[in-house]
Formats: sequence, C-alpha cells, structure tokens
Amino acid sequence: MKVENHIEVSGGVCAPLGFRAGGVWCGIKGVSKRDLALIYSEKACAAAGVFTTNRVKAPGVLVTQEHIGGGVLRAIIANSGNANSCTGAAGMEAARRMAELVADEFAIPSRTVAVASTGVIGVPLPIAAIESEASALADSLRGDGAGSDAALEAIMTTDTRKKDCAVETEIGGVRVRIGGIAKGSGMIHPNMATMLCFITTDADISRDMLDSVLRRAVNHSFNRLTIDGDTSTNDMVLIMANGAAGNPRIEAETDDFAAFASALERLCVNLTKKMARDGEGADRLLTVSVNGAADEETAAALAKSVAGSSLVKTATAGADANWGRVICALGYAGVDFDPQAVKIAFASAAGEVVVCEYGGAKPFSEEEAKRVLSSEEIEIKVDIVGGSAGQATVWGCDLTCEYVNINADYRT
Amino acid sequence: MKVENHIEVSGGVCAPLGFRAGGVWCGIKGVSKRDLALIYSEKACAAAGVFTTNRVKAPGVLVTQEHIGGGVLRAIIANSGNANSCTGAAGMEAARRMAELVADEFAIPSRTVAVASTGVIGVPLPIAAIESEASALADSLRGDGAGSDAALEAIMTTDTRKKDCAVETEIGGVRVRIGGIAKGSGMIHPNMATMLCFITTDADISRDMLDSVLRRAVNHSFNRLTIDGDTSTNDMVLIMANGAAGNPRIEAETDDFAAFASALERLCVNLTKKMARDGEGADRLLTVSVNGAADEETAAALAKSVAGSSLVKTATAGADANWGRVICALGYAGVDFDPQAVKIAFASAAGEVVVCEYGGAKPFSEEEAKRVLSSEEIEIKVDIVGGSAGQATVWGCDLTCEYVNINADYRT
Repeated sequence: MKVENHIEVSGGVCAPLGFRAGGVWCGIKGVSKRDLALIYSEKACAAAGVFTTNRVKAPGVLVTQEHIGGGVLRAIIANSGNANSCTGAAGMEAARRMAELVADEFAIPSRTVAVASTGVIGVPLPIAAIESEASALADSLRGDGAGSDAALEAIMTTDTRKKDCAVETEIGGVRVRIGGIAKGSGMIHPNMATMLCFITTDADISRDMLDSVLRRAVNHSFNRLTIDGDTSTNDMVLIMANGAAGNPRIEAETDDFAAFASALERLCVNLTKKMARDGEGADRLLTVSVNGAADEETAAALAKSVAGSSLVKTATAGADANWGRVICALGYAGVDFDPQAVKIAFASAAGEVVVCEYGGAKPFSEEEAKRVLSSEEIEIKVDIVGGSAGQATVWGCDLTCEYVNINADYRT
Repeated sequence: MKVENHIEVSGGVCAPLGFRAGGVWCGIKGVSKRDLALIYSEKACAAAGVFTTNRVKAPGVLVTQEHIGGGVLRAIIANSGNANSCTGAAGMEAARRMAELVADEFAIPSRTVAVASTGVIGVPLPIAAIESEASALADSLRGDGAGSDAALEAIMTTDTRKKDCAVETEIGGVRVRIGGIAKGSGMIHPNMATMLCFITTDADISRDMLDSVLRRAVNHSFNRLTIDGDTSTNDMVLIMANGAAGNPRIEAETDDFAAFASALERLCVNLTKKMARDGEGADRLLTVSVNGAADEETAAALAKSVAGSSLVKTATAGADANWGRVICALGYAGVDFDPQAVKIAFASAAGEVVVCEYGGAKPFSEEEAKRVLSSEEIEIKVDIVGGSAGQATVWGCDLTCEYVNINADYRT
C-alpha cells in the first residue's frame, strides 16, 4: 500500500529535528574549498547502510561497516579530495583515527561514528590535516540549511551541482522529516558507485525496519542509476534515525512503514535524478522506462542495458533518434523478451514520438524527433506489447566530449 | 602442444588456393564506395561459424546459421551500409534473396551461401539494388590480393583502416594457408559485435575439427576485444576450408590440429589488434594482460573489466598513470582475487613503469610514466603476485572525443 502525502521542504540533512551539520577546509584539496564534513545527532540514532559491491573496499567502508554493525550511530565524518583507498594498513589506521577524532570532540564511542572518503585512489590520506581541523569541524556545526550546505560542499568532487533534498510526511498524525545530501557524478553504475549519500530522519523506527526500508529505496533509486559503468571502492548510503519526531515507533510493515518508505523513496529518486543530471560532462538527463517485461528485475536489466549503452548515450548527446541502438542494447541485456513485441518512443516536455513498433521501424518525422530529443530531459519508453507486468525506470545521462575531457586528466 | 612454424603472407582471403573474392558498389551507400562483397570457392568447403549472442539477431545471421547447419559452404555474400536488422519478414526475405542471387550466378544450392550485412539498424534493405548488381559482383571475382581488398572495402563502415591478414604454415609437409578479412570498430565487446570476419583456408580439415578450432581461436581473440561495450545484432565469424592444399586431413586433435590452431589463432589475434587499434576515434591500442588469477576465465574477466572501463579508457587517452582506476575496475569484475596481491605496471615500446604493489601505491616518476603512456600502443600489466597460473590478454582502445563525435550523429 502506497501513501503519498509527503511534500518537499528545505534544510537538507538539518531539516529533521535534532541534527546539525557543518564543513571546513582542512587542506586535502589544494584549493581553498571545503573538504571535511560532519553530520551530528544530539541523540543516539538507529542506523543502516548500503555499501559498494566492489571487491576493493576503501578503509572508510570497512570501518563504517564494522561500526554500523552495532546498529547505533551519532555522527558521520567524511572527506573529499582523497578516497583513502588502496592505502594499506596506514589507510585503515587513518579511517579509524577519523572516527576517534569525532568521538573525542563529543565524548561519544568511536564505534558510533561513520567514516567516508571520496576522491583520488591510492594516495595516502593526510590524517594530520584532518586532526588539526577536528575542533574547527565540530565548531562549524549548525542546525539549519546552511549547516547542511556546508557539509554538502565538503563532500563534492567533480560535482557541478548541489544534490540535496528533504521531505516531510505524516506518520500517526505526527510530522516526520527525512533529509539527505549526496555527491556523485562520474563512475556511477547500478549497485552504486563514486557516490556518497547521507540521510537523516527524526522518525522513530526500529533498526530492522530502517535497514529494510533503506535497501528497498536504494534498489529503486541509486541502484537504477548509470553514468559510466564504473563501480567505485568507496560508496555508501547511510541513514540515521533519531526518533526526535515522536511518532508511534515503526516496528513492522504497517501503513506507517509504507508512508515512510514512500517518502524515503521520493527523496532517494530526487537525489538519483540530480546525480544523473550532473553526470560528468552530461548535457541531458536520460530516463529509460521499460514496461511489459516478465518481472521487475527483467525490466530493470533491460532499462539498465539501454541507459548504459555508450552508443545510446552518444546518440542522446547528438539528439539522434537512433532506436536501432536501443533495441540492440535490449538484445544484449542478457534477459528474455520478445524482440517482435518491442515498441519504442522518445519523449520529453516537447512531445512524444513513436519510432519502433513490432520490433521494426515505424515511420516518424525526423524534425519532430529532433525537437523532442533536443530537450534537457529525455525519456526512452520501451514497451513489450502484450507482455507481463514487469516495470522499471532507470536514470542516466548522455555521453559527451566533456566527459572525456574531465576524465582524461582527473588525477594530474 | 603448440607448434609455431607459421609466417605471415599477403593476399588476404585469396592467399589460400582455390578462393576468389570481389566487391562492387550497388548503391546502398550513398557515396560511390564498394558496398557489396563476395567470397567464392571453386570447391565445396567445410564451414563453421560463430555468431552474435544478442537476442535480436539480424536476418543475415539467422539465414547463415540455417545454411551453415548443413556444414558446407561455397560462398559468402555481404553488404555494408545497411544492417538489414529489425526489418521484419521483408528483411528475412531479403537475406534469403541475397543467397539465391549468388546461387543462381554459380548454379550452386543457395543453402551453400552465407549472408552478412552491416550498417544502420531498422532501415529496409534495398534488395533491388543488390539484385541489379549480382552479375557484376560475380564478374568482379579475382584470385589475388586485389580481389580480397575489394571484398574487404565492401564490408567496411566506419572503419578507417583495412583489416586483413594471411598466414602460412606446414601441415604434414604440405604448405597450408589461412586468410581473413574483417570489419569492425565501434560497438565491439567480448562476445563479438559489429564485426564481420570471413576466413578462408585451403587446409583439409573435418567440419567438427574446423568448428572446434574456430571457437577456440575466437575465444582467444575477438571475444577478448572491447571497444565500447555494445554487442550488435549482426556479428559473425565464418571460416571456409576447401582442402585444396592436399594436406593429410585433420580429423582429430593431433599435432597437425595444433599447428593449424596456432596459425588460425595468430591470424585472429592479428585482426583483433587491428580492430582495437581502429576503435572508433581511438588514438591508442590498449592491451591488458592479467597473470596469476585463479584460472584463465577469471583472468579474462579481470582483464575485460579493466579494458572496458570508461575511466581507464579516458585516462589512457590522457596518458594518465591512473592505476587507481585499474584496481577499481579489477574490483568490480565480479570475480575473486586478493586485492592486497595486486601489482600493476604500465608498459610500451618506451619502457615499463610499476605503479602499484601489494594493492597500494608504489612511488614512480610521473615524467617516466607520461613517456611510457604517450605511445600509440599501451600495455597494462596486472599481476596477482603469488596467485595461480590463470593468464589472459584482452585488447581495447582509449576513449576520445572523436568517439563521441562519430557516434553522436552516425545515423543522420
């Protein structure tokens, strides 16, 4: 059962009661831009996380997985400019030290502090720089939107746009808020990558339910995003729930759970689309929806194959109605469907044009197609006509020269 | 047992005895460039083929699979400029008609004619244009290198370089030759794509052995090639063996079989590297070799993940020694290995520089790395130190703006 009585509000991770956030420049980034972020809760939070599936996991991921095993978090510390990945024993030491620094500032167990890093792989993390700014970081905390903004700035790398969102819903007659900040543009693929997302909520919800609702939301949002097919070593989505709203505690899959799930999914999809829209060098947001597949998983596989195709992405950059590349990408998705039943339409705010029916060409106006495809937000709609009920939506972006330029010399 | 007594010779598909080839312009391509190719054998040939794994298969693929089921071929007809894919019943009709046209010219069963198409998807094949040039095509056949060249030109699309090769070996004291022509640059991925390769040989070899040796060679060459991750609807590798050399017939996995296999693999690897080198917009040939994996399959999965990474490919374009992206791509290959045992070196004709040891940074000279990476042919060498004997080599190319430009408006 889906309840959609939520609205968007401002304030990012500080929108929910009882959270403060901040960010400072500690010198990891060569230029004077915030590179160290902190999110802090007055109260102990139920916590859950979803982590990269990469076999090479950064120390921050390993330490946070260990800490979150206890189920309780008070704070998240994160740095940008250095991924602290492939940095050996010293890297593990540095990640633990980041947690301890926060623990010392607030006299809380270091086990209640999550640690995240994003940036270049394989360069030792300058932990001394973080140590010397730990107090300033704690002092930077604010309970308003400016605090959330500062934390957000401090986790951005090649991001060109801010990605934050907050939603408000009602649970058992009580106002509940969820807020999130995220970073990520290149190196993003189904199953998360080079992305960090930190979510706060004042909902009162059990740890088990929080874990379940987070996995579900991530599966319908961040795991349906593809920028360039790479999956990084550092990614995580964390959620902290401090219960400050005072709603009737969510402990089972009730209507209240559904309301919270719906609001959280809205927040995650909002951030996902912001990431897709900010794909490195991207000019256009590409949404691929598949209907009529055998099941949701099959639909997602088909949609991901299309959204991830370099040829579809370059055609999108060129506003070219090249549906042959779409059907070709469906064909190598590795799942079963009837090619003869495929119908494809390109759509945008400028209109919709059907270009393929029964798996073959349907005559269309090139002029009209060009107009539709020249929008900044394009949708490719795939229907398996007469198929089953499997439906999924995936987000991606076009592939441009700018992507190549950004990534040809990112490190140096 | 591997016997390597083969040498490269000229003549392409006409190098082996008893084969003729040719090509004409029938008007499918708007500009006056050959677009219709024919390879013909005086004698009936044992034949084998490997085809696209895409679920959407072009009529040419379906017809050729059907014909090759009989085990005997006399000719291959192929057109470029139109993939005859997603063209419905009319497309199947057109593919059958192509075979019939050749059959009529030479009074041979149409079942002994293979059919291939490459080009744009979803546009009806102008079969009348092919019909009107069928006689001219038959007349264009020549038994020398010029004939092979004409056929090769007629299968090229966005290719900028000719891909042909011929090798000579000795089997049972008898000179045996193998020749091949290939097309393919974009849309190429492990498991073959947007590539056609036609191989001729005058070896006397049973159909079963031919099938086995072709699959083995393709697995070590074309299936280890990645350009952009797309897998097309039209791809095939065909081999025709007419027995004209008069060698002792190869009917089992003897030393003679090994000698033939080795020569065929050399030819296929040669053509694979030519395709990688000609990847759309590519400036550099990228070779990724993995040693010390659990087995060959694991090594190939690791190497493919690196060669296919957009971030590794753009770093290669920028001559950037970004080994973090290499280890990251190893990590998401989906196979098991010890990240702590990873050693990575960049190599080229200009030298070799180790950049990662024990899964972490190894200090190196940026200047030296830049020099090594500025070559046109780069190798990324990955060692799982202290691991098992699994070894594999994969070929790819860098990702450049030119790739984006070529593909943003290929269709229009």
